[in-house]
Amino acid sequence: MALRLVTFAPHGAPLGGGPARAGALLNDGEVLDFAAAGLPYAEMTQVIEGGAEALSAIRAAMAAPAATARLPLSEVTLCAPIPRPARNVFCVGRNYMDHVAEGDRTRGITNSELPKFPQFFTKAPDTVIAHGATIPDHGATGITKWLDYEAELTIVVGTAGTNIAPEDALKHIFGWTIANDVTGRDLQRRYGQWFKGKSLDGSCPMGPWIIPADELDASDIAIQLWVNDEMRQSSRTSKMIFDVGQIMHHLSLGFTLRPGDLIMTGTPEGVGYAMDPPQVLKTGDVVKIAVEGIGELVNPVG
Amino acid sequence: MALRLVTFAPHGAPLGGGPARAGALLNDGEVLDFAAAGLPYAEMTQVIEGGAEALSAIRAAMAAPAATARLPLSEVTLCAPIPRPARNVFCVGRNYMDHVAEGDRTRGITNSELPKFPQFFTKAPDTVIAHGATIPDHGATGITKWLDYEAELTIVVGTAGTNIAPEDALKHIFGWTIANDVTGRDLQRRYGQWFKGKSLDGSCPMGPWIIPADELDASDIAIQLWVNDEMRQSSRTSKMIFDVGQIMHHLSLGFTLRPGDLIMTGTPEGVGYAMDPPQVLKTGDVVKIAVEGIGELVNPVG
Repeated sequence: MALRLVTFAPHGAPLGGGPARAGALLNDGEVLDFAAAGLPYAEMTQVIEGGAEALSAIRAAMAAPAATARLPLSEVTLCAPIPRPARNVFCVGRNYMDHVAEGDRTRGITNSELPKFPQFFTKAPDTVIAHGATIPDHGATGITKWLDYEAELTIVVGTAGTNIAPEDALKHIFGWTIANDVTGRDLQRRYGQWFKGKSLDGSCPMGPWIIPADELDASDIAIQLWVNDEMRQSSRTSKMIFDVGQIMHHLSLGFTLRPGDLIMTGTPEGVGYAMDPPQVLKTGDVVKIAVEGIGELVNPVG
Repeated sequence: MALRLVTFAPHGAPLGGGPARAGALLNDGEVLDFAAAGLPYAEMTQVIEGGAEALSAIRAAMAAPAATARLPLSEVTLCAPIPRPARNVFCVGRNYMDHVAEGDRTRGITNSELPKFPQFFTKAPDTVIAHGATIPDHGATGITKWLDYEAELTIVVGTAGTNIAPEDALKHIFGWTIANDVTGRDLQRRYGQWFKGKSLDGSCPMGPWIIPADELDASDIAIQLWVNDEMRQSSRTSKMIFDVGQIMHHLSLGFTLRPGDLIMTGTPEGVGYAMDPPQVLKTGDVVKIAVEGIGELVNPVG
């Protein structure tokens, strides 16, 4: 079982309401509280900045976890791994061939032209919500008619870098997580640039944990999404148009990436607005994303 | 003289290297250090969150400034008013009619169609640099062939709000500052979405101070820009396609604006890439922006 790094908030007194803190799942029922285990990584950003040294110390602590540092999962709430990113989450649009094609079809374009360069946009840090948290139904409030999902492998940047060569990208990656790029399709189109349709409150479910990059080769893993029990997306990360190395390279040209930056790598085909008939997310739906080797990110809509 | 709120860093020992702090210009030669004056506003974000109450307290302190809280401007460095915004700076593109037209001309479009909705994109918080700081010459490093400037009136959000009605926008605005939306034009076009060309390191000079909204009606003020001694842009904020109320309204639909958010309102005509022949910023150039009632933001390129 890969190392699953989490941010969690303990329930109840005396810890209730205390700050979220970093830890790791010991098994499917318990979390190791890093601070309680004497590790100098009370927050996930400290783990990330600690890099390989932090991971070594964490693995050692997990091999012999102090009883006082173990908490039942039932007594904590998982937060997003980085509950409040220090800046907007970076995203790549139109990065799977078949998703480009389905998007073009909805606009009556038959010969889809692939992007020659990655298309970057952002989501505000405050849009990030945890595994299990509710995606606001912006359809019910009239903000959008087309609330949609997008399953995405997400890069957690480990070390700072500018002008990163594609072949060096992995050295700058701390780990991987999952995100749902919830989108107001009509807003995305109406406002020309995508930020508006991509940055509705609560539109970035992320988690449930980070898998360190030294434990998972993410270059060809399955990525799938279900709405309720219906599978909507099923692809592999090897089908990206711009792979992780190219994404890191282009994004970092003249622009310094920093530890804790989050980069969503685009979604495969199967989004709701391209279905026939088109489907929208609505109150009562449950969206589940599974990425092979990472886990499952599940969020209700309401 | 309007109240000019600054963030500054004192030179030399024992204060050198200490954190930047909030203050106000007492006159053209002195700054009032709020913390030293006993005001609970050590940082600009605290002033903004303090709102009208903070402004009252500051105005009272300025009327009788304690000698121990006065610093000569020659002994401090002005920082950007919010040196490191908590999330990306929000921007509106194509928001002056004549700028839309000049942009279309460069693409061979003669009948410019005005945007029906504001086009929002973002710049990373770390791109913000101070008045007087050097704009990196990303042309010299080969990152862009088309380094360009854009003079912009900038909104400093005061109180949180979602779905703000245009006529209520002013209630949510703390004040005004100036920003230069430095752009890699070729990158802006090449990457489809604008984030990449808009978020080069050091590409967001901002300042030199904030003027509170209760001291300046920004709806029809002159906005001008010079490169070296050549005037390149000269317009008025009344020529915006989407005024400040409309910008706040659209941006806040389903998306919560927060105190300290910065919103750049678009640039008028006269950008370098639309000139004949096109002009690019290069090492040795000095860019000066003047916005009536606010002040001047001056930055060299190098």
